[in-house]
Amino acid sequence: MSCKHIGKQSISFKSPPSVSGAANVVGKKESDGPLGKSFDCVSENSLFGEKTWEKAESAMQQRALELALKKAGLSEDLLDCVFAGDLLNQCTASSFALRGKNIPMFGIYGACSTMGEGLSLAAVSVDGGFADNAAVVVSSHFCTAERQFRTPLEYGGQRTPTAQWTVTGSGAVILSSAGNGPYITNVTTGRVVDRGITDINNMGAAMAPAAYDTLMAHFEDTGRSPSYYDLIATGDLGREGHEILLELFRQGGIENMTNLTDCGMLIYDREKQDVHSGGSGCGCSASVLSAYLLERMRHGEIKRLLFAPTGALLSQVSCQQGESIPGICHAVAFSAELTPEEH
Amino acid sequence: MSCKHIGKQSISFKSPPSVSGAANVVGKKESDGPLGKSFDCVSENSLFGEKTWEKAESAMQQRALELALKKAGLSEDLLDCVFAGDLLNQCTASSFALRGKNIPMFGIYGACSTMGEGLSLAAVSVDGGFADNAAVVVSSHFCTAERQFRTPLEYGGQRTPTAQWTVTGSGAVILSSAGNGPYITNVTTGRVVDRGITDINNMGAAMAPAAYDTLMAHFEDTGRSPSYYDLIATGDLGREGHEILLELFRQGGIENMTNLTDCGMLIYDREKQDVHSGGSGCGCSASVLSAYLLERMRHGEIKRLLFAPTGALLSQVSCQQGESIPGICHAVAFSAELTPEEH
Repeated sequence: MSCKHIGKQSISFKSPPSVSGAANVVGKKESDGPLGKSFDCVSENSLFGEKTWEKAESAMQQRALELALKKAGLSEDLLDCVFAGDLLNQCTASSFALRGKNIPMFGIYGACSTMGEGLSLAAVSVDGGFADNAAVVVSSHFCTAERQFRTPLEYGGQRTPTAQWTVTGSGAVILSSAGNGPYITNVTTGRVVDRGITDINNMGAAMAPAAYDTLMAHFEDTGRSPSYYDLIATGDLGREGHEILLELFRQGGIENMTNLTDCGMLIYDREKQDVHSGGSGCGCSASVLSAYLLERMRHGEIKRLLFAPTGALLSQVSCQQGESIPGICHAVAFSAELTPEEH
Repeated sequence: MSCKHIGKQSISFKSPPSVSGAANVVGKKESDGPLGKSFDCVSENSLFGEKTWEKAESAMQQRALELALKKAGLSEDLLDCVFAGDLLNQCTASSFALRGKNIPMFGIYGACSTMGEGLSLAAVSVDGGFADNAAVVVSSHFCTAERQFRTPLEYGGQRTPTAQWTVTGSGAVILSSAGNGPYITNVTTGRVVDRGITDINNMGAAMAPAAYDTLMAHFEDTGRSPSYYDLIATGDLGREGHEILLELFRQGGIENMTNLTDCGMLIYDREKQDVHSGGSGCGCSASVLSAYLLERMRHGEIKRLLFAPTGALLSQVSCQQGESIPGICHAVAFSAELTPEEH
């Protein structure tokens, strides 16, 4: 047995997989934000040379995966499998991105937590010896998401203060059995948590309890305290959800979560970019992880990172039928270096 | 390393996971078919005591998982993770089925191939030592699928001869590190294959090339010939897709595929039940596998089974935008007994 599960929800890797390549592709609004200079590829018109936004989203995934492979110095043939997901009905951004490619594909769905889910499964595949190189690629697109989940863009609907802005972006990460890190040392897999939130314009409130559930499980399973990490980054709670998560920690007796941030807060300038509570979408945490967080690890600015993207598991139909909004959060622990026993 | 990947797309398990429990729940039409007596639980009105078909689909998943756990003699607490998927937008049948349950959940999407994808990932988790017990649960529902993909039921639209009938059903399978089999010895993960089919009423034609691609990869990677298996069961090609797959094998020089069948052909009586080409949906292969194929293995009627469910990776939007229909197929090899070297 090469590895083991610990506690109820967590896994500890015996041979922690290494990030051999990570890349991202975003739209203009994202490139105008505080992390603008960090992104690998930007499309000025959100179409990436395609005729529809849906095709554009697939093109983003293809480009992100190509760039990640290039950074890893790997050809497509050396990828043993890819885990891919998005927010579109039937995950078509991913299926069409991988159409005709010679890569075994696992389709995954975790709403905006999909990069966390994919990294967990890719790490399991690599650490277990089932793959030497496994990729994760996810995406979201403001225009496809508005069309599908909300109203036609032309309608120009007003947004409430707690609403978030779906990131136009794709991130790809390649994990390999050999490499110089950053390494994935542990993962904690989320449960479906629903605290009865029904406001579809307040996803942060719906997802914050799931983040709290998974993070507390992670600390309990691993025996690590929050301060073990230089940074804990949730996926796309936004300002509203972030404040709720801080309050949940306070109620749980954990006061000083000064190392807690959120990718949805990092990607846009809240004052200047009219995004209300912040960014959201699979592409939010995926692009911030690949462009910013992993780069900070590579530059030695962060040694230990806990990446915990969250997803709201609703659909238009579930809302119309009066259901509340379930959430999920998958946590992935990165370390810049390995301890002697992890080597 | 506890296990290894072989060839481009396949995995061979060193400690083949054992099926410790499998169960299913279906609707009345399925119980009226040739396999009617094999199913564990039947709802006469397709609502399973719920107010909407979507809630009914979630209830089916919950019931199938409960029954599978019962058969395995396991409590929910002993499940290390569950892989769950369905055909609904944003996979809500699965998310709502697992809401509030104390089980780490991975959402997956492989259209009607989802049971194959889930079994592959669950087997990887168990063989790799990441889980002692991992579950897979998937579902489809005729009424939710018609509403979402086609036309309102009240519309009473005519069906073309190549059309299939979405199975109202859910299947759950639990894999464990210890047990008496049947065992999963190998899996072959599919690529996204698109041969340009655009007729949304002929899914069999769209998926047959994916089945051929994965089955041929399986034979090449494992060195096994088709005759190695007592039975090869695709997921839901239906009569039309089955004939196309046979023709593809003939063109590839393989004539005598007398051991090839299809779950979509097995579940309904084509003459009496007005299903045209046969059954489809995640619940088709999942219920036929759990109710019929695995039972035949337990009774010694089949020693070696290759289960190869197929999925059509389209959405309403992709069709409306003129895209053809990509397909995928995931193959899972079951063996009633292990050879000495597999023990």
